Amino acid sequence: MKNEDFRRAGHQFVDWIADYFENVEKYPVLSRLEPGDVKKLLPPVPPTRGEGMEAIFRDFESVIMPGITHWQHPGWFAYFPANNSPASVLGEFLTAGLGAQGMVWQTSPAAAELEEVVLDWLRQMIGLPAGFSGVIQDTASTATLCALLSAREKATGFESNESGLKPPLTVYASEEVHSSAEKGVKIAGFGRKNFRRLPTDGRFALIPEKLEEALIRDKDAGLVPACVMATVGTTSSGAVDPLRAIGEICRKHGVWFHVDAAWAGTAALLPEKRWILDGAELADSLVFNPHKWMVTNFDCSAYFVRDPGTLIRTFEIHPEYLKTGVDAKVKNYRDWGIQLGRRFRALKLWFVIRSYGVEGLQAMVREHIRLAGLVKDWVEADARFELLAPVDLGLVCFRLNDGRDEAGLDELNRRFLERINADATIFLTHTTLRGKYTVRFVVGQRTTEERHVRAAWDVVSTAAGEVLKS
Amino acid sequence: MKNEDFRRAGHQFVDWIADYFENVEKYPVLSRLEPGDVKKLLPPVPPTRGEGMEAIFRDFESVIMPGITHWQHPGWFAYFPANNSPASVLGEFLTAGLGAQGMVWQTSPAAAELEEVVLDWLRQMIGLPAGFSGVIQDTASTATLCALLSAREKATGFESNESGLKPPLTVYASEEVHSSAEKGVKIAGFGRKNFRRLPTDGRFALIPEKLEEALIRDKDAGLVPACVMATVGTTSSGAVDPLRAIGEICRKHGVWFHVDAAWAGTAALLPEKRWILDGAELADSLVFNPHKWMVTNFDCSAYFVRDPGTLIRTFEIHPEYLKTGVDAKVKNYRDWGIQLGRRFRALKLWFVIRSYGVEGLQAMVREHIRLAGLVKDWVEADARFELLAPVDLGLVCFRLNDGRDEAGLDELNRRFLERINADATIFLTHTTLRGKYTVRFVVGQRTTEERHVRAAWDVVSTAAGEVLKS
Repeated sequence: MKNEDFRRAGHQFVDWIADYFENVEKYPVLSRLEPGDVKKLLPPVPPTRGEGMEAIFRDFESVIMPGITHWQHPGWFAYFPANNSPASVLGEFLTAGLGAQGMVWQTSPAAAELEEVVLDWLRQMIGLPAGFSGVIQDTASTATLCALLSAREKATGFESNESGLKPPLTVYASEEVHSSAEKGVKIAGFGRKNFRRLPTDGRFALIPEKLEEALIRDKDAGLVPACVMATVGTTSSGAVDPLRAIGEICRKHGVWFHVDAAWAGTAALLPEKRWILDGAELADSLVFNPHKWMVTNFDCSAYFVRDPGTLIRTFEIHPEYLKTGVDAKVKNYRDWGIQLGRRFRALKLWFVIRSYGVEGLQAMVREHIRLAGLVKDWVEADARFELLAPVDLGLVCFRLNDGRDEAGLDELNRRFLERINADATIFLTHTTLRGKYTVRFVVGQRTTEERHVRAAWDVVSTAAGEVLKS
Repeated sequence: MKNEDFRRAGHQFVDWIADYFENVEKYPVLSRLEPGDVKKLLPPVPPTRGEGMEAIFRDFESVIMPGITHWQHPGWFAYFPANNSPASVLGEFLTAGLGAQGMVWQTSPAAAELEEVVLDWLRQMIGLPAGFSGVIQDTASTATLCALLSAREKATGFESNESGLKPPLTVYASEEVHSSAEKGVKIAGFGRKNFRRLPTDGRFALIPEKLEEALIRDKDAGLVPACVMATVGTTSSGAVDPLRAIGEICRKHGVWFHVDAAWAGTAALLPEKRWILDGAELADSLVFNPHKWMVTNFDCSAYFVRDPGTLIRTFEIHPEYLKTGVDAKVKNYRDWGIQLGRRFRALKLWFVIRSYGVEGLQAMVREHIRLAGLVKDWVEADARFELLAPVDLGLVCFRLNDGRDEAGLDELNRRFLERINADATIFLTHTTLRGKYTVRFVVGQRTTEERHVRAAWDVVSTAAGEVLKS
C-alpha cells in the first residue's frame, strides 16, 4: 500500500468516523444479525494477492458494519458503557501510527513517563491519597488477577512463585462480586472452593461483620486468608461495599485488600460522590477503568498499588536481552503486569483528560447520574414497576411486577427485556438480584442526553404495556 | 470537543502519520532522552478545564515525540520487530472510531465472526492443519499463560480450578526459552523450582532425548509432568526446537505440548521455511504474533488450540449478566482468555492480509531473510567478527573477537554495542549465548531495504574499528 493511498484512505476514514459520531443513533444499537451471517459472507481462504483499500472498505461497510453492536450509540443503556470520545480516538490514531511498544523505558521513554504522570493525575482525580502508584492494564480482569497474584505471593512470602502453591489460601468477596474475581481465583490457583462469597445487606453491600467471622473461622481451621476483594459499584446493582470497615478488618488480620471500582471509579471525580471511595486509602490495590465511563477508548484500565515492590516481585523477570543501561533509574512497566509487550495507552488518556479537563468530565458524569435519577423516579412513579436496588450512580435496577409468582415474574421480565431490545433503538441488559430476573438500565454513554433517556423510557413503558397485555 | 474539531484534527493527524511514515528514518531511532526528561515537562496535576487539540498536539510534538523510540524506523534491528503498516493503522482507526467491545458475540457479531475467519486464514497461511481453532490474545505472554493454565487443568482433571494447585506439577522447556515462560510458570502457580530448563545442542535447540530423560526422572519421583514448551525461533539466537520429536514424546507421556512461534511464525508463510513448523500438528497449542513480523499493529497475538474445550473449561464463567439468547450457537471469546473485555483486533489483521495478500507478505518476509543472509555473509567475511549462532531466518548473532579472554570480550562487546547505538541512526540489542555477550542484528522492520542494511553495516563496521582501536 503506497503512502498516498494511506493518506487518501486515512482522510476518508476520518470523515467516515466523524460522520459515524454524528449518525450513530441512526443505527440499530444492537446488531440484528443471526449467528453465521457474517461468516458466510467472508471467503474461507486468504487472498493470494493484495487488494486496494477501496475494495476492503466496501466490504467493511457491507459485511462488517451490519454486525457491529454500537457501544457508542446514545441508546446504549446495557452492561456498563465502554466509551470512546473524539480526543481518545485521536490519541489512538497517533498511537497506531507511531507503533511504539513500551515494554521497557528505553523502548519509548515518553510512553513510560507519560503513563506515570497521567496515572498520578487519575489518582488525584478520584481522590486516592499519595502513596499509590499507578499502571495501565488492559482490563479490570487482568488488574484483578494482578491483585490476586500479589496477595498470593505476599501471603506465602513469595514462596508460591518459587515452589508452587500450597493450598488452601482463601479469598473473600461479597456474593455480588464480578465474575472476573472468580476467574482470577481459578487462574491464580487458589481454587474456587477457597473463594468465600459472603452475604450482603439490604443494599447488596458486603457486611463487614460477616467478613470478619469468615476470616476468623478460616484462620481457626488452619487456612491462610490471602485476599479480600471489595467492590465499589457492583455489576448487578451498583452496590458500594463499605471500604473503611473492610479495610480496617484487613489491616487487623494482615490480609491483602483489593478494591474493584472498575465502573464506578469515574464517579469519584465528583466531590459529592467521593464518599464511595471513603476508606480506599486502606487498600493495597484498586482498579478503575477509564475505558468504561471516562470516555477513553477500550482498553485502558488503571491499576493502583500502594507497594509496587510486591507487584514487581510477583512478576519480575530478568533475561539478558531485556536489560538496558538505565534499569536502575526508570520504571520498566514490563514488570507491572502479565504482558511483556505494551501499547502506548497513556496517550489517549492524556488526550482525554486534557481535552475535557476535570470539570468537563465531572459535568458529563454528573449529568449521567442526574438522568439515572430521572429513570429511578419514573420507575417509582409507575405502579407496574418495582425498583430492585438503591440508585446511587448511573444504574437503575427494576422489573415489572403484577403480583404473579416469582417464576412467572422471571418469565414476564425476560419477555419484557426482549421486547425492549427488539427494535434495537435502545439496548438494555439483565441480571439477577436475590434470584429475581432484573432489568438493568445504565446511563453512561458519552452522547446520551435527556431526550435519549426520555425516548428510551417511552420504549420501556410501551414494552411494559405490550407484555402485560399479552 | 466538537465533531468539526475532531474532523479537523483527524485530517491533520492522518497527514502527520503519513509524513511520519515517509520521514521516520530521519528521527534518531532510539530516543536520546535521559530518565525524567519527559516527566519534568508535564504538569503534576491534571488540568481543570478542557484544552483545544491544537495545544495538546503542540505538546505531543514537543514533549512526547523526543521521547519516542521509533520501532517503525528502517534502522530498527533491535529485539524483534513490532511492525505496523498503513493497512493495519487504518484498521486501528476504524476500531477506535467504532469503540466496539467484543466480549460476547452479541456485543458485536462481526468482531467475533471476523476473528474466527481471519484466524483460520492465518492458520492456513502458516500451514497448521485443520483442527486448530484460533483466538487473538494481546501478547504471547498471555497466550503462553493460557497454555500453561490449560495444561495445568488438564493434568489435574480441572481440579486446580476447583480446589487449588497440588504441587508439584512440572514444566519443561529449553534453557533458551523466552522469559514469558518463567513468568507464566510463576503466575499459574507451578513454581519456578518445578520448571526444568533443559540443555540445548550446537544450534541452541532443545535435545529431545534430554526432555524424555527429564520426564521419566520426574515421573519416577512421583511428580506430574504437565507441559512442554517448544520454541520456534528463540529470542537469543532464533533456534528452532525439533517439534516432531518433542511432540511425539509429549504424546507418549500424555503431556500438554505448547509451541511458542511468537516471532518466527511469520516465516512459516514461506514454503521454503515451512520446515520450522514440521511437527506442529502434534501441538496442543501454538502462539504466533502478527504484531511482530507480520506488519499488524501491536497488539495482536494469534493463539491456536487443538481442543477449545480445554481452554474454555479453564476460563469459563457464567454470571447471569453475561448470558445472551444465542450462547449455544456462537463463539463467545470472553471464555478464550484472561480478559473479559476485548478490542476488535481482527479488523486490522483482516486489513493487513487483504491489503498485502499472502504473496505480498511472503515477498516482504523473504526479502528480510535474504538481507539477514547478507549480514551473516559480512560477519563471516570479516576476521574481526565471530558468528555465534546459525542464521535460519532474520536474526544474526555475532560479536567482536580479537582473542582476548571471555571477560574482556564481554566488556569489549558491551562498548561495541554502545558505540553502534550512540548515534541513534540504527538500533541493535544484545543477549548472552552460552554466557557470551552477543550482539543481535534482526532484519524485520517493514520498511527496511537493502540500503538500510548496508548503511547499518557501515555503522557496525566503523564502531568495530573504533572500539578495537581504543
